[in-house]
Amino acid sequence: MSEGKNREFLYKNQIKWESEKKGFLFSEGKQGFQVATPPEFRGHPGIWNPEELFIAAVNSCTMTTFLSFAEKQGLDFISYESEVEGILKFSENKLMFTDITVKPLIIVANESDIEKALSMIDMVEKHCLISNSIKSKVEIIPEVKAKTK
Amino acid sequence: MSEGKNREFLYKNQIKWESEKKGFLFSEGKQGFQVATPPEFRGHPGIWNPEELFIAAVNSCTMTTFLSFAEKQGLDFISYESEVEGILKFSENKLMFTDITVKPLIIVANESDIEKALSMIDMVEKHCLISNSIKSKVEIIPEVKAKTK
Repeated sequence: MSEGKNREFLYKNQIKWESEKKGFLFSEGKQGFQVATPPEFRGHPGIWNPEELFIAAVNSCTMTTFLSFAEKQGLDFISYESEVEGILKFSENKLMFTDITVKPLIIVANESDIEKALSMIDMVEKHCLISNSIKSKVEIIPEVKAKTK
Repeated sequence: MSEGKNREFLYKNQIKWESEKKGFLFSEGKQGFQVATPPEFRGHPGIWNPEELFIAAVNSCTMTTFLSFAEKQGLDFISYESEVEGILKFSENKLMFTDITVKPLIIVANESDIEKALSMIDMVEKHCLISNSIKSKVEIIPEVKAKTK
């Protein structure tokens, strides 16, 4: 995270329509990929869509925020994996993501690290910059286990 | 878009930590890709990050919403490409995306389609479900030109 509270960061990327409901996402210095309208809105299966990118942003920001705290606090963890679920529905007469649930499963090295990891997740909940930027209610439901010897 | 206002849609995906500040995004039936903390937060260059996924969701949703209206209203357009810019900074003592600007360049078949395309962008601004879901101020600045004969 930025040390100075006056710092600003600018992010950019590009999309180019290909055909039907499909386009290609570009970002300088990165490998691009296809994005499309999902099948439920008369689009295409098997291609990433805006809806999934949105919840993936929340899921990945939760992970990167956790990694940042784990580094700072020296948490000895073995693995981190997480599923995200987002509910899209009409609310206030608009179609929007009302609820997002992030379910990280974290394996720590020792039993004694479980509490530390859980308290870290509380901090992640407050510091994820994507969660801070959205209206959807974001809930993190962590599961933390110690590695079986 | 959904016809029935009672319909709900559920989206899911998964992330798995790999090493350092890197993870891999999975979604059933789609090709996964790597995501990492960006270099400005002590991460890695050349890899998609949560910040970019977030603005890519806005950029691609703007496009797919446009494609949906273009289909319904029979707009004869030749190409659509769009750059998105997002400003991440401290606001209300939180790091968040405060402003997102989407700049679509649309080439239509005929001069007479320019007005139609511009009025469509006004509708896109109100109907993009990702913009509806976020706190950031989203501005669309369209440029519409007719194809040069």
